[in-house]
Amino acid sequence: MAGGGQLARMTQQAAIALGVPLRVLAGAPDDSAAQVVADVRVGNDRALDDLRTFAKGCDVITFDHEHVPGDHIRALEETGVACRPGAAALAHAQDKFVMRERLSAFGVPCPAFARLPAAGAVPALEAFARDHGTPVVLKAVRGGYDGKGVWVLDSVGDDAAALVTGLLGQGLDLMVEEHVAFRREIAALVARSPYGQGAAYPIVETVQENGICTEVIAPAPGLSDDLAVAAQNLALGIANELGVVGLLAVELFETATGPVVNELAMRPHNSGHWTIEGSRTSQFEQHLRAVLDLPLGSTEPTAPVTVMANVLGGDDPDVYSRYVHVMAHDPAVKVHLYGKEVRPGRKIGHVTALGDDLADVRERARHAADYLRWGPAMKAPGTKENA
Amino acid sequence: MAGGGQLARMTQQAAIALGVPLRVLAGAPDDSAAQVVADVRVGNDRALDDLRTFAKGCDVITFDHEHVPGDHIRALEETGVACRPGAAALAHAQDKFVMRERLSAFGVPCPAFARLPAAGAVPALEAFARDHGTPVVLKAVRGGYDGKGVWVLDSVGDDAAALVTGLLGQGLDLMVEEHVAFRREIAALVARSPYGQGAAYPIVETVQENGICTEVIAPAPGLSDDLAVAAQNLALGIANELGVVGLLAVELFETATGPVVNELAMRPHNSGHWTIEGSRTSQFEQHLRAVLDLPLGSTEPTAPVTVMANVLGGDDPDVYSRYVHVMAHDPAVKVHLYGKEVRPGRKIGHVTALGDDLADVRERARHAADYLRWGPAMKAPGTKENA
Repeated sequence: MAGGGQLARMTQQAAIALGVPLRVLAGAPDDSAAQVVADVRVGNDRALDDLRTFAKGCDVITFDHEHVPGDHIRALEETGVACRPGAAALAHAQDKFVMRERLSAFGVPCPAFARLPAAGAVPALEAFARDHGTPVVLKAVRGGYDGKGVWVLDSVGDDAAALVTGLLGQGLDLMVEEHVAFRREIAALVARSPYGQGAAYPIVETVQENGICTEVIAPAPGLSDDLAVAAQNLALGIANELGVVGLLAVELFETATGPVVNELAMRPHNSGHWTIEGSRTSQFEQHLRAVLDLPLGSTEPTAPVTVMANVLGGDDPDVYSRYVHVMAHDPAVKVHLYGKEVRPGRKIGHVTALGDDLADVRERARHAADYLRWGPAMKAPGTKENA
Repeated sequence: MAGGGQLARMTQQAAIALGVPLRVLAGAPDDSAAQVVADVRVGNDRALDDLRTFAKGCDVITFDHEHVPGDHIRALEETGVACRPGAAALAHAQDKFVMRERLSAFGVPCPAFARLPAAGAVPALEAFARDHGTPVVLKAVRGGYDGKGVWVLDSVGDDAAALVTGLLGQGLDLMVEEHVAFRREIAALVARSPYGQGAAYPIVETVQENGICTEVIAPAPGLSDDLAVAAQNLALGIANELGVVGLLAVELFETATGPVVNELAMRPHNSGHWTIEGSRTSQFEQHLRAVLDLPLGSTEPTAPVTVMANVLGGDDPDVYSRYVHVMAHDPAVKVHLYGKEVRPGRKIGHVTALGDDLADVRERARHAADYLRWGPAMKAPGTKENA
């Protein structure tokens, strides 16, 4: 697995059970996954030479993130290295414009979109806003994550023009999208094997704050069976159309007219962490089974409701000192920490609670995540509730 | 964790989630756990110098097996190393005679037993058989496991005398025990923290063939609530009386007059592998929580019935080639392989199935384990069913 983040770290748990020797290409020896894997290669997963060295002796290469350049993956494939997903599929998770063009052509509901050419970006933005109204969503075509690389513009005036000019000056490719009036955000997670087998997890609701996912509720509460099946089929169809091998996470807007695609990822995804305890087969095991062309595992839920809450860094870096309270308060909550340096707002772990009652399970997950972040105050110092 | 076997390997899965950096002292770099842990020290866990070097920088030392000499553990403790369980408790899992004396004094039901002195072993054995009848069970006081070090003697004649003389000649300490007429074997698994908190898992039935555990059924079918609670309390009482820190597995005979103690282990135990999927807290996480003095986790079952079947080595070492069938046949069965060289009869992994119906769940686990061992024949070549 190229990339040494928490996704590779959690993949190692599944690899241990399957007896699959996992090698990780990590940027540094203390990367999240490098701490827990015996076979670590330290190198640059954006550099072809490092990728080639890393790949020697591996049966299959897969990815912890979208940032390995497509040209490098193609170069590996040309020398016979099995990359799953392959460069052709992965392009759609790496380049938002390529994704929008392909999905729209395939008939998948997407927001209206347009590329902003480096010459004439501001007039193009203004024209788009005239056609589709404001707010509009400005996006970096490549490299964004966790709300980075996305700007919601309430109006298209001088401030917007200055932002666009500044971003172009940094060398970013930009596009603009219609701002979708959504009821909530949901996500579909599916897997596809080289053999062509598909498996779909229940549709989940994802709760975002400031562009960062804070909570995932499985299954999405009150989602109609029709809409759930439509969203699963949409994701399975995209996986098939794009030839994805491994996991495909499709972030969706739930709208009055059905699901609309927001983003794609082709790897284990934050919206699927709940599956470690909440599904018979975790997304990490499923990804390994898919990329190794093994039959896919059951996606049956293990409880009526599962809630995953991300643990974000607070001000006090010693998150472990808060274990005692969290574990004593709720002996059934499951804590996952990623071994990452605590920085305010950074995803450093997650917690999972399961049960029958949605409100109760949400409260349990929320409590554990808030306490691990903030301790007994349960809120950031100086916030209104806590002032 | 001293020892690099499958118990340390599976402990790593729990350590990854908790964010606990696990260091392993392995006998060889390709030991089961050494394959999956970043911080491996290769050394001899029976050698005090290697143990001292290993312990430097560890907060707590715990054990993958019972074979670290008690004197060495005591020496570590004398220099301030936290060993959990400590030497005083662990002695009762290392020396069957010490265990029998202590438990009997504590009023715990045990078989009648006697040490066989090196001088006069055979007359002592004959006297024991006269008092308690035959068969009798001859045991090595230290070092046995998986049926090794245990001999059931149907009669005490010349053959028995020759066996005893031979074993004494190999330097073994021997004891003899009454052969308990049991209905079946069950096991109690509990945890105890330094703080004194205790947690008990449901009582399980263990199925043995030729002294090797082949199957664990959780909870033990048809066990009365009274007997289940009695067995849990017995184990919690032993853990408390002996000052165990970490897990304590108590192998029990179910008899007409209640549970009788067979063996003790103070570590994750084969009879608890089912907890990885079948309990809210796996025994591996529980052991870590206990030895780190964290609040213990919920032992609530996740399904009405969980069955674990050990995968033993067959004749064909390529167990992975049989994955495809097992996973396709039953997408919900969970496979755990230990990365160990396949040798006939050796425990190389286990499978777990969960569900509502005992017969169905047993059949699913049995099928997966048998197929992984033997492939499509499902039986050893030349066995009656397959001849």
